[in-house]
Amino acid sequence: MISIRRYQESDWPAVWPMLHATFAAGETYAYAPQTSEAQAYHSWIEAPAATYVACAPDGRVLATYYLKANQPGLGSHVCNCGFVVSSEAEGQGIASAMCQHAQREAVAMGFLAMQFNLVVATNERAVRLWKKLGFAVVGTLPGAYRHQRLGLVDALVMYKTLSA
Amino acid sequence: MISIRRYQESDWPAVWPMLHATFAAGETYAYAPQTSEAQAYHSWIEAPAATYVACAPDGRVLATYYLKANQPGLGSHVCNCGFVVSSEAEGQGIASAMCQHAQREAVAMGFLAMQFNLVVATNERAVRLWKKLGFAVVGTLPGAYRHQRLGLVDALVMYKTLSA
Repeated sequence: MISIRRYQESDWPAVWPMLHATFAAGETYAYAPQTSEAQAYHSWIEAPAATYVACAPDGRVLATYYLKANQPGLGSHVCNCGFVVSSEAEGQGIASAMCQHAQREAVAMGFLAMQFNLVVATNERAVRLWKKLGFAVVGTLPGAYRHQRLGLVDALVMYKTLSA
Repeated sequence: MISIRRYQESDWPAVWPMLHATFAAGETYAYAPQTSEAQAYHSWIEAPAATYVACAPDGRVLATYYLKANQPGLGSHVCNCGFVVSSEAEGQGIASAMCQHAQREAVAMGFLAMQFNLVVATNERAVRLWKKLGFAVVGTLPGAYRHQRLGLVDALVMYKTLSA
């Protein structure tokens, strides 16, 4: 059984390698493949409203997500999240558990909806999971993602109104 | 005949009042109505790749726009712009001229597409103008904008692939 808790500074040595591996692959996130540790720390830890980790029963960090407002001011009632699972922990439902956790946290913080701005269309597993969790594809951005293997591919905007 | 050129520091005393009036109205931009001058300066001048002003023949600044990458890294071939016209200069085609100028500048900078992330659906004049200039509504975000008079209203994602 995994547990999800707030990120602590001592988690960074476990979090950075999974962010680095995900960004370096260049198939799912906009962050440049050569994103530095300092840039990743800023984007994943400093800039968001909150960051979380999912841990194995023995305490090992298996995955992480951030939660933040998607827009300033008059768009700040809609939040945005990013989820990264370490490759060794894939296929165990951790992304699903984190997304459900994120929705509860978002509601507790007062957010009314959650938006994903750039879901890479070829990331079929993610698209399927978000749909299963109630997110709708509300937009398609033609060629908006420069996939490191496939070249320019479409990206999806996905959205879910949250209920308390 | 208006002319469009790069923003210079001496333009700020003319640019800030039109940004302030637009943000304070809270009907078209996400920026909070109470956005401070320093915050506006950061968002409109410092953060973007470039900022421009549209001037009357006598040199008066009538309008302004910014141009920046919409996403980092693997999404950075898509740009984003924001346009603000002073209330006294509305209805003269300045937004249209700026958007066409922005598309040429974006192509010159190597951008392949332009995306507007949060076009307030009730801002019918803007929606009509962007459509006329070749932008497609590629997404609708339900209740994503907290309109200061109307409450939560939809926002549109609009997108145009640019050709050199």
